[in-house]
Amino acid sequence: MENCIFCKIIKGEIPCTKIYEDSKVLAFLDIGPVNKGHTLVVPKEHHETLLDMPDDLLAGVAKATKKIAKAVKEGMKVNGFNVLQSNYRVSGQIVPHYHVHIIPRLETDGLKHWSQGKYGDGEAEGTAEKIKKAL
Amino acid sequence: MENCIFCKIIKGEIPCTKIYEDSKVLAFLDIGPVNKGHTLVVPKEHHETLLDMPDDLLAGVAKATKKIAKAVKEGMKVNGFNVLQSNYRVSGQIVPHYHVHIIPRLETDGLKHWSQGKYGDGEAEGTAEKIKKAL
Repeated sequence: MENCIFCKIIKGEIPCTKIYEDSKVLAFLDIGPVNKGHTLVVPKEHHETLLDMPDDLLAGVAKATKKIAKAVKEGMKVNGFNVLQSNYRVSGQIVPHYHVHIIPRLETDGLKHWSQGKYGDGEAEGTAEKIKKAL
Repeated sequence: MENCIFCKIIKGEIPCTKIYEDSKVLAFLDIGPVNKGHTLVVPKEHHETLLDMPDDLLAGVAKATKKIAKAVKEGMKVNGFNVLQSNYRVSGQIVPHYHVHIIPRLETDGLKHWSQGKYGDGEAEGTAEKIKKAL
């Protein structure tokens, strides 16, 4: 898609530090790493969010993510990693081209997960009903 | 697996607020939601992390995650969501049974993403070499 920075990277019009490539997927280092080795896995075909991804391409990206995450863990000599994927602007998605972050984690990185709330009496059931109605 | 809380939920030994179920996947509300409607998508078969997941099951979970995320977005009337998956203790994985978080996002939730660093001259290339060697 015109004016999509990831499409330009895929076409070679903008450089990247490549990690992996196959017929459907390109993976490269995030230029703003949360930790060193932070890698993005991107389908070559342009789709904005998870909800726009065809199932077979989604499976291909997931399989590539597993393969690359193993190499990130081993290559960066870390003991774990997060896989994060953001959808729509409110979620922090900056580039509107589906992409998966593989973020290596260090015991010393000090990164905190978002704090968790809880449901009042009956609130979980009411919440589940709203979601199930939309399934 | 014995003593796995998610395996116990799947077997019905521990209750959950169910959102979705098929032959391979169960989805239910996280009891400690980051935002209301925060849902976990879990394969019924026990595998600890992404690196342990068979490809076909991974594809099944990804497809279910897409379907459920659409319902979370619509049912909770939110404009976006994050998909997060943690691997090994250092990453914040508490239950060692592969699971995917779908986190609805609100314009007003104030949640921040982890801050991003940058690479020095040549450092990205050296980092990529380490990962590519492990592919």
